[in-house]
Amino acid sequence: MSTMMDSTNDAGLQSWVKSANEAGCDFPIQNLPYGRFQKGGSDEWRIGVAIGDRVLDLRAAGLIDHADMHRLMAQPREALRALRGGLSEGLREGSPHQMRWQAALLPQAEVNLGLPCEVGDYTDFYTSIHHATTVGKQFRPDNPLLPNYKWVPIGYHGRASSISASGQAFPRPLGQTKAADAEVPTFGPCRRLDYELELGIFIGRPNAAGSGIAITEAEDHVFGLALFNDWSARDIQAWEYQPLGPFLSKNFASTVSPWVVTLEALAPFRQAWQRPAGDPAPLAYLDSPANRAAGGFDITLEVWLQTSAMAEAGASGVRLMRANYGDAYWTAAQLVAHHTVNGCNLRAGDLLGTGTLSGPAPEQGGSLLELSQGGKRPIELPNGETRTWLEDGDTVILKGYCEREGFRRIGFGECRGTVLPALA
Amino acid sequence: MSTMMDSTNDAGLQSWVKSANEAGCDFPIQNLPYGRFQKGGSDEWRIGVAIGDRVLDLRAAGLIDHADMHRLMAQPREALRALRGGLSEGLREGSPHQMRWQAALLPQAEVNLGLPCEVGDYTDFYTSIHHATTVGKQFRPDNPLLPNYKWVPIGYHGRASSISASGQAFPRPLGQTKAADAEVPTFGPCRRLDYELELGIFIGRPNAAGSGIAITEAEDHVFGLALFNDWSARDIQAWEYQPLGPFLSKNFASTVSPWVVTLEALAPFRQAWQRPAGDPAPLAYLDSPANRAAGGFDITLEVWLQTSAMAEAGASGVRLMRANYGDAYWTAAQLVAHHTVNGCNLRAGDLLGTGTLSGPAPEQGGSLLELSQGGKRPIELPNGETRTWLEDGDTVILKGYCEREGFRRIGFGECRGTVLPALA
Repeated sequence: MSTMMDSTNDAGLQSWVKSANEAGCDFPIQNLPYGRFQKGGSDEWRIGVAIGDRVLDLRAAGLIDHADMHRLMAQPREALRALRGGLSEGLREGSPHQMRWQAALLPQAEVNLGLPCEVGDYTDFYTSIHHATTVGKQFRPDNPLLPNYKWVPIGYHGRASSISASGQAFPRPLGQTKAADAEVPTFGPCRRLDYELELGIFIGRPNAAGSGIAITEAEDHVFGLALFNDWSARDIQAWEYQPLGPFLSKNFASTVSPWVVTLEALAPFRQAWQRPAGDPAPLAYLDSPANRAAGGFDITLEVWLQTSAMAEAGASGVRLMRANYGDAYWTAAQLVAHHTVNGCNLRAGDLLGTGTLSGPAPEQGGSLLELSQGGKRPIELPNGETRTWLEDGDTVILKGYCEREGFRRIGFGECRGTVLPALA
Repeated sequence: MSTMMDSTNDAGLQSWVKSANEAGCDFPIQNLPYGRFQKGGSDEWRIGVAIGDRVLDLRAAGLIDHADMHRLMAQPREALRALRGGLSEGLREGSPHQMRWQAALLPQAEVNLGLPCEVGDYTDFYTSIHHATTVGKQFRPDNPLLPNYKWVPIGYHGRASSISASGQAFPRPLGQTKAADAEVPTFGPCRRLDYELELGIFIGRPNAAGSGIAITEAEDHVFGLALFNDWSARDIQAWEYQPLGPFLSKNFASTVSPWVVTLEALAPFRQAWQRPAGDPAPLAYLDSPANRAAGGFDITLEVWLQTSAMAEAGASGVRLMRANYGDAYWTAAQLVAHHTVNGCNLRAGDLLGTGTLSGPAPEQGGSLLELSQGGKRPIELPNGETRTWLEDGDTVILKGYCEREGFRRIGFGECRGTVLPALA
């Protein structure tokens, strides 16, 4: 486990990039998240690190000699730590690199931030017991939390091709739905369009097919975390999902934030992982002292909504909820160990979604399905609008950050996506 | 629909590659399936076409100027037809290309046949109503065929990273299982390991995200078909699959045959697609006159088993079943139209599994789950062995072929995979 902090986490560090030193900045020198960007007018993807409101081009700064994010991600942890150490040194106030690196620095506002990498395989988990219980009640009132939930980190495969970078806009999906009292299904635009607040876990070091990753090694295969919105068509989902799981209700779009925050940056925000009293201990392959001691992360997560009326009025949006990744029932290390215990091979750039990260309180639901109680209770917005499900023109913005006394804030930036009208 | 035959299908055509003219050959000049291969000792993948017991290196023959299978697959149908026409002309007896192409011809036995292409996204469908009903009875005795089955081409996402070429050998997966009468699950090697007889539909031309593919255009996006074995761990599946579908029970291994047979080669084996009287007509986006008239394919499929005892005795194996793709409830065109109707984008090299292609008779089950009635009735093999589930050392071989009076046999070759003992 990457629980050890080092000098790169010191709150006292200041950067010669002045915007990184401002209070409330998501990208201080203690963060250093990785992403990909294109310079204006160019098709070429470059690897960058966010620092304040700038991005440092790693190749232009002489830190790497390629622009292959999968290759970077696949490095052993020690090599990635060394790179982080070099970045931290070079971006500090007084660094001798300042003159040279300044030429490799671009304003984030002037580049095109893309997906952190091409996603090979995408798996979505179901790690919030609060989400599983609330949603389970709606789909199966008599049987909300299935007997396997506390034993198996439930997950399923998702669609990689439709994962896009923050800023994604997609048409409302069409599909089959069937009303509870209808004899036959009908075809048309989704009427229960929803978001899902998740974190995306990017895999770094691959494992060989046929050999699993022990939980004690699991985090050596995690490159970092990003914000992730797994858009969902609830009416399509209800009709299609049995017996093989959600399909067209999910695979029309998923959105990832541009910056991947490393476990090294998150080290100060580790926390113990524990289960409610009375819940079973995990099976041995999902258990380790280190995972119990510090397998969790204290990451605050928020969902914001900007309706088209708000956008026209120049308003940036309203916060719908706030939750914390620390409330998840399974840790990132457990997800990696479980995914590979049967010999399944993970590759650099694969993405594991945590599943919707709802908190324990009703107002902490990570989807409209939860906040509107399955569509029964519309949400009242401060400008007088209401929402039961997403409407055309709505923009959903996910935010995430870590704050702790004695440490600099570590932010995830934003993950933003917009619903367009259905195609005729 | 590619229902039109042309001169490349003529039974009278003979090739200057003599082995292609032998009766019973899978790869006559009327077939011309595509695949990838490596020459002995080389890491480089080349694109080839099977002809008799040889493979023609397309670049060495001057037919293409690259070795990028995705690029080849993404060509419009007309370009692929032109390539097929050129191949057919050049491989015919008396072709002026014979001298030059002979140098581009290698024995299949001397090359390494790989995956036809890297698979981006893999989706598995559930198109055999016979499989769905028989399996449904075992997992849900009171509710075998769910109400959505006759309306929705049920599908779910699978794992691309663990798809390998024919010849794959993989360790028996480990995982959680729970006996019906047990209080808690246990961890260990799968005890109900199974195969699934499927066809894999390789996507060629991509569609843009946000725009669907009409059923009338669907086959223009199908590059061709191959044999596909979706190995399954039934005991792991039973415990994990609710509510989000199969996961670790499937993603440890899937095996694809080396040759992709094009729709042009299959044109003589088209057949009408129809449903049993009384079943509902499909919704409009899944229906077209052409699909009704000729959406089906008459492809005979077989599963063979070679146990380690058979292999030691020099026996090639025993046939366990035979079925026909024509018995599927949904056509390939319907799968493509359904998959994209919500705007989901398919890419060149994506793979759609048909799902287990069981026939209507009990002995036509496409998996041991069906043939052994859920493990209750062991299968007796001619050498005195029995099988309820797969044992270590078992090799499963899928075969497929089309035969029709007045036409040359079109074969799929073999899809072969072997079970190794579980890792400790």
